[in-house]
Amino acid sequence: MKKPSITTETGRYFLTDRIREEVNFYLTEQSQGYAPPAIQKPAPENATIIRLPELDFLNIPSCDLLTAIANRQSHRKFTKDSLSLEELSFLLWSVQGVREKLHEAAVLRTVPSAGCRHPFETYLAVQRVEGLESGIYRYLPLDNSIALVKQLENLTSHLTAATHGQSFAGQSAICFIWSVIPERTEWRYAEASYKVIALDAGHACQNLYLACEAIGAGTCAIAAYNQTIADDLIGVDGKDEFVIYIAPVGKVALNQ
Amino acid sequence: MKKPSITTETGRYFLTDRIREEVNFYLTEQSQGYAPPAIQKPAPENATIIRLPELDFLNIPSCDLLTAIANRQSHRKFTKDSLSLEELSFLLWSVQGVREKLHEAAVLRTVPSAGCRHPFETYLAVQRVEGLESGIYRYLPLDNSIALVKQLENLTSHLTAATHGQSFAGQSAICFIWSVIPERTEWRYAEASYKVIALDAGHACQNLYLACEAIGAGTCAIAAYNQTIADDLIGVDGKDEFVIYIAPVGKVALNQ
Repeated sequence: MKKPSITTETGRYFLTDRIREEVNFYLTEQSQGYAPPAIQKPAPENATIIRLPELDFLNIPSCDLLTAIANRQSHRKFTKDSLSLEELSFLLWSVQGVREKLHEAAVLRTVPSAGCRHPFETYLAVQRVEGLESGIYRYLPLDNSIALVKQLENLTSHLTAATHGQSFAGQSAICFIWSVIPERTEWRYAEASYKVIALDAGHACQNLYLACEAIGAGTCAIAAYNQTIADDLIGVDGKDEFVIYIAPVGKVALNQ
Repeated sequence: MKKPSITTETGRYFLTDRIREEVNFYLTEQSQGYAPPAIQKPAPENATIIRLPELDFLNIPSCDLLTAIANRQSHRKFTKDSLSLEELSFLLWSVQGVREKLHEAAVLRTVPSAGCRHPFETYLAVQRVEGLESGIYRYLPLDNSIALVKQLENLTSHLTAATHGQSFAGQSAICFIWSVIPERTEWRYAEASYKVIALDAGHACQNLYLACEAIGAGTCAIAAYNQTIADDLIGVDGKDEFVIYIAPVGKVALNQ
């Protein structure tokens, strides 16, 4: 068997900050005056756009932070219940919501991101949300909306296949599928982008775990997925945009 | 100038889950029956051990989760106020606290970790905690304690130097310095360990951001640090254990 293309040595190196010593930051795209990449991928042409309820008017139950942290656990069993559009809106805001637009190239979000680059797009494989047809959607945080990317037969099977047979992904009410557009971070950090992109994905996912606690839902993040099937499922090229992390969400039984 | 040792191609590859297709999981240390690495690094010999207040008796103000997520922001200005030992205990529990010990090789914590491996140790550079002398400490989550690792002159300067001159690190009341012991995750995932370790570090740090909100504190995580100085500061070898992420914490003024 061929030696894997990541070794103990290169993998550990990746987790240090040694790469910063090697990068010439005077030569980054930002330093050279290139325009920054768009903050948000445009909605597909002629896509159905669903406006989300505004956060100010969301009817989310009060949930104590300490209790949420204490109770958080991995959930792989979901009830058949649907989430409301309000609940979906709350979860999306928690993971990537915009707090403030600083200027054309930078927005502050509910989660931190290295250099305020926010390289992710949030896709949803929706199976049980009140008022939404089943399908693949994408969050448009600047517009507080979601766009319908595509509808497809047997979403359950696609999700299970995309996660190497982890059937709880297929049984989710909503499966969060984060893609990364690495160019957004590379514009500023060049070859020093990759560790911080992974850290940033962890930030977002942790907020999802906690936000689920407030609405009687749960998740268990999936890092073991089939890259090709997952990329195909959300319709990205696998090169300039590709799946980085997956989190199936559903309502959970109270006694779990 | 030499080409950096991480390229756009290898860096992006690292963020996919392609490496899983290359790893022979029948040959991992776990599959071969090797004993798992210790869950917690032992305290240094003869170290002063400080028992932390128990979570059940912590007097942490109630803080609504939605409010915490909405208010979280990067804080780089700290007041001169100290944190109490209770507040420190709460922060430590939030980022790496043990919820349940499953068996000798696995504990459930307040944050998720791929394969329940929890590869981190949490070091603290303490400058302003009531009842604690300034110095480098390490969290012992299984014992609900911290161990004094070492005391050193001019901790402020060391922290600023370790973070490429980011003076707010030196001005923190407590600087969280996470190290990783990659072997803990490699035992199970071999060469597929590295992306998930970075994701896990993001999970932990996001809980720190939110927990700070409950106690009038703030943080701004630092991924740009001097690896050698940071490793030396906490006394790790830089190979089998090394710094992965840093988060200076302090009290913040209410109008910030």
